[in-house]
Order: sequence, then C-alpha cells, then structure tokens
Amino acid sequence: MRILIDCFGGDHSPDANIDGALEALNRFPDLTVMLTGDEAVLREKLAGRAYDTDRVEIIHAPQVIGCDEKPTDVIRLKRDSSMMKAIMLLRDRDDIAALVSTGSTGALVTGALVRIGRLRGVIRPAFCPLLPTMNGGIVGICDSGANVEVTSAMLRQFAVMASLYMENVCGVASPRTALLNVGKEPGKGDTIRQEAYSLLQETEEVHFSGNMESRELLTGDYDVVVCDGFSGNVLVKSVEGTAVELLKKLKKDIFSRTLYKVGALLMKRMFEEEKRFMNYQNYGGSVLLGTSKVVVKGHGSSKAVAVTKCIEQAYRMEASGLNRRIEAALAKYEHYEE
Amino acid sequence: MRILIDCFGGDHSPDANIDGALEALNRFPDLTVMLTGDEAVLREKLAGRAYDTDRVEIIHAPQVIGCDEKPTDVIRLKRDSSMMKAIMLLRDRDDIAALVSTGSTGALVTGALVRIGRLRGVIRPAFCPLLPTMNGGIVGICDSGANVEVTSAMLRQFAVMASLYMENVCGVASPRTALLNVGKEPGKGDTIRQEAYSLLQETEEVHFSGNMESRELLTGDYDVVVCDGFSGNVLVKSVEGTAVELLKKLKKDIFSRTLYKVGALLMKRMFEEEKRFMNYQNYGGSVLLGTSKVVVKGHGSSKAVAVTKCIEQAYRMEASGLNRRIEAALAKYEHYEE
Repeated sequence: MRILIDCFGGDHSPDANIDGALEALNRFPDLTVMLTGDEAVLREKLAGRAYDTDRVEIIHAPQVIGCDEKPTDVIRLKRDSSMMKAIMLLRDRDDIAALVSTGSTGALVTGALVRIGRLRGVIRPAFCPLLPTMNGGIVGICDSGANVEVTSAMLRQFAVMASLYMENVCGVASPRTALLNVGKEPGKGDTIRQEAYSLLQETEEVHFSGNMESRELLTGDYDVVVCDGFSGNVLVKSVEGTAVELLKKLKKDIFSRTLYKVGALLMKRMFEEEKRFMNYQNYGGSVLLGTSKVVVKGHGSSKAVAVTKCIEQAYRMEASGLNRRIEAALAKYEHYEE
Repeated sequence: MRILIDCFGGDHSPDANIDGALEALNRFPDLTVMLTGDEAVLREKLAGRAYDTDRVEIIHAPQVIGCDEKPTDVIRLKRDSSMMKAIMLLRDRDDIAALVSTGSTGALVTGALVRIGRLRGVIRPAFCPLLPTMNGGIVGICDSGANVEVTSAMLRQFAVMASLYMENVCGVASPRTALLNVGKEPGKGDTIRQEAYSLLQETEEVHFSGNMESRELLTGDYDVVVCDGFSGNVLVKSVEGTAVELLKKLKKDIFSRTLYKVGALLMKRMFEEEKRFMNYQNYGGSVLLGTSKVVVKGHGSSKAVAVTKCIEQAYRMEASGLNRRIEAALAKYEHYEE
C-alpha cells in the first residue's frame, strides 16, 4: 500500500513527519511511503536515518504555504507545495491509497473537496477526530470543523460515516451514537437538530442513543457524537484547552511548596500516566470521512508518534474498505443531487 | 431592596435556597427576601432557623413543575408554581428588584421573556454565566443557551450587555471581548460570525479582541466571550464536564496505590484548593441580560453558597443600575422593530 506524507506544514515538520513515516514502515511490511516537500531538505534529513530505501519515495514540492493564505488561493497558486502536490497525486494515481498531512486544515479540506471529490452519495465530507474517555475508551466527534453550517441530512450522513469508521477502523462494535444538543430531551435545539433526531431514529446503520450534552462527552457512555462543524470545533478544542490549562495549573501549584513537590514525587508515575492519557498525540489525527480517497489530518503540533498514528489510521481505513461501506450504506437513503 | 427567591426546583431545594437567602440577609443589611413555594413547608423549614423575621416574606405557591414539562405549558398551567408566582410578582410590583431561581432553565427564560419582557432596544435576552480562568480571574460567556439561533445584530448586543455586566457588576475594567469562532483569523466561521466581527469592530462600548478559539477560554486573556446559545452551551458544559471527569479520574487513580495515597495526603490542601477553584458553586449563577427586571438562574445543583452568590449578583445588578446602562448603550445602535 502506498501512502503520501505531506512533510511540510506542521510545527515539527519535516522531522516529525519523516520519523513518523519511517516508523510506520516498521509496523506495516507492505507499506510504501511517498514523502512530499523540498527534495534537497528531505534527502539531507533521510541521509542520517536508517530505513528501507525501496519503500520510501520522494516527491519534489518546493513551494511553501503561508499561515494566512486563503485555501482557494493555495489550490490555485501553490500547486507545487507539499500539500497540493500530494493531493494531485492522490487524485491521479490509482496505486496511491491515502494522504496524511499536518498542514493547514482549511487548505486540506478545500483541496480534498475540489481536487479529490466526494464519495458517491456524500453531501459533504466531515472531520472525525478521537478523544479518550475516562473509562479507557475513545469517542469520535463528527464533524469537528469541515462544515460550519449543516443540514439535518448532513448530520445523518455524519452519523453513518462515523459509525462505520468506529466499527471498522477503530474496533468499536455497535457504536453508541449521540446527537450533540443543549439538553437531553427530544425536541431540544433548533429545527436542524429536531429533524436530525427524527432521521437518526430511523437510520438502521446507526445505534442512536438520543441527545447528548457536552458535559457527558468523556464519560464513556457514547462512541460517536454527531454535530455541526462549528459546535464540534468548539467542543473538541474546549476539552483540549481545559485539560491543558488544568494540568498547567496543577504543575504550577505543585511547584509553589516543597511539601507538594515531595507529594508529587511519590505520585510521579501516576502524573506521567495522566499526561500520557491526556496527550492527543496518542490518539491519532482527524480523519476526513466522505472523500473518494482516504485523507487524514494530523494536529499542527504533531510529533513523530502522532504522525505514525495518522498513517496507521489511513492504512486501516484503506485496508478495511471503509469507503465502499460508506457508499453502500448511504445509497439506501435519499441521494443528494447538486 | 426586595429580591424573590424561587425556593423549589433545584436538586437541593428548598433547604439550599432558604439557607442561601438567609445568608444573603447577613451580607446586605437593606435586603428583604421573598421566598416562593409551599407555605407549610417553608414555615416548617424556617422554624428551625435563626433569622430576622421582618426581612423574610413567604409567598404561597403550592404547584410543582415537572422535569419534562414544556416551558409554554408551565406558563399557562402552572401559575401557582414557585417560579411562575415569582415571575408574576416581579412583573407586577415596582418595589421588587429581582428574582433568583434554581428551577427549569427553559421555563425561566420563556416565563421571563413572555411575562416580564425585554428592555427597550433588546432583540433577545441572553444568559451570561462566569467561569474561573487559570490566572485567578473570571470570564463571562454570553449567550450560554437562551438563544440556539442568533443574528449578527444579536451577537453585537450580547457583547454590549455582557461588557457592561462585567464592568459594572463584576468589577472588570475595560473587559476584553472576543467572538467565539473556529479560528482566530478574521473571515472565519459562517456569515453571521463574519458580520458580527465587523459590527463588533465598530462598537464603541466593546473592547473587541477579535476571534477566539474555545481552547483559549480559560487562559485569562479574555473577559467576555460572545457566542450563539448553542455553541455557548456546548462550551460551558464541556469545560465543566472535562474538569469534573478529570478530577474523578485523578481521584480514582490516587486510590489505586498506597504510594499515591501517601503522596496525595501531603498535597491534601492543594487538592482541596483545586477542587474549590473548579467548583462553579463559587462563581454564582447565569444572569439573564436584557430582561426589563433582573433575573438570575442558579445551577440546578446549587447548594446554599451558590444561592447566596446568585442573590449577591442580583443585588449588585440592581444596585449598579445595569439595566439603564444597557438601554442607553443599545439606543445608539439600530433599534429592533418586531
């Protein structure tokens, strides 16, 4: 299986992306990685590393995407950037399975949508990142930001796609799926939410558990949470922000008194475990569901371990035939005509 | 000053509400509290407590509101409930300043809107709860759930009302105000957010700091965050849920090994401090901004300390002349005609 790694764009790129790709080669014997980016830089970085040269290809893409560039400009003007070159290769070559990128989210979504396109029947692709729950499980949140505006039909599709992803790629049997809302009772929220509630009740592929309030996200009672991309983005980032800020405060408070430092020393292993537990780097990236080829977006701050995890997700998505399953499932419901 | 306390409806009512009201009398010598609810129960509860009888009035309201009753039904059918009786008294009597309730949010918003009405120029009232930030400050989130759908003009009004509240009631000078969005760059989000961004830039009363992502909420960099009631609700409850679940996990992990228990014992005082810090009971309720009389909603799980805090907020809102300030500020901008 061939997977493209966009090696420029994240905070720790290209090193993290290269190391993450090489580690993925160890995990999957049939994997070949295609690294996109400035060839001279990539060759220099690779020269110091041990790897199977037959399974690493370099695609020269010297252009750099700026932080504040508009996605539509990137697509038009940055065809030789590491991201756009990867997107075009993914579109044009049947022997390439997937793309992993830690670059600009907006450019990636727009590029994937415009250049790669949607699966048959999909209204709009959606992001589905994973968060750890307090009972040791994971929960998928779909959509986490690809679509700030949605319809009830889109929410239903997000539920179908995310359920199939959790079941076939993440190994969660019969994923319990909830609709993010401002209260648990049916009838809560705006018209879109009320309609989606009815649609989800009659969707065979989805194990619908009703409405969920955001405070329940981490309890482990749900495997998939369906939402518009605006509130999904707010949800994921506020969990992340709250965890980060609380750990920061804890650390600061521990260092304020010797007694606390001694206590914390006894609990060192536990705190390390908590830190590992709350580190999103260990839970992979945000997979884009509904595009006609597999695209995984790693967090901008991804280190090598996170990049490897993203490649693993992409590999498993392709190996599980997820996209064919999504098309088959969505075909049963009203088809979308543009 | 007379303030109504709806004594039935919260998890710890009526005891928490009664105790909270009596404690408020100690703090404000010119305060009289009017307790609404079943008179026999209230008299029995008060009989065992020491208080200034001249400053406590009992309003008999025997009807009980069920958890799953529709707000519109409550208004129509439960006129003798502790909440609706309080709302009607607040509307009819000029000598009553405010209402504090820990009952159903939906019924309170609808009751306040329909029976009490809006301030001149206000499109829709909005909730503004407070959360603690990591540098020891507070941040107000407006709207946190009264309006699941908004317009850009409403978002601008939320910003004006919440800024005036933070400045005049919470003592935050020149509150830095941000728009909740999916990214920091101008132009992010849907049309409503883009329009609101422009409106906020030209609103003199608001110290606009641009877009904010939810992960920054607790950093202390912002004093007011403006949002629609849907994503605001998601935001507030996910911060609460994440903090609660993390503390629960920490506690469980501490009890898993003797060594950790010893360590935690040394840090006992620190953990108590963290717990107190993250306990929303200490930050009061969600004030309703934009109604023609002061209404404060306490969390359903409010204990006496939280009820006292809510009464304190109501007292200060009235004493500061907040509503007159809001009317004056909004009069400068396009008036809303229904």
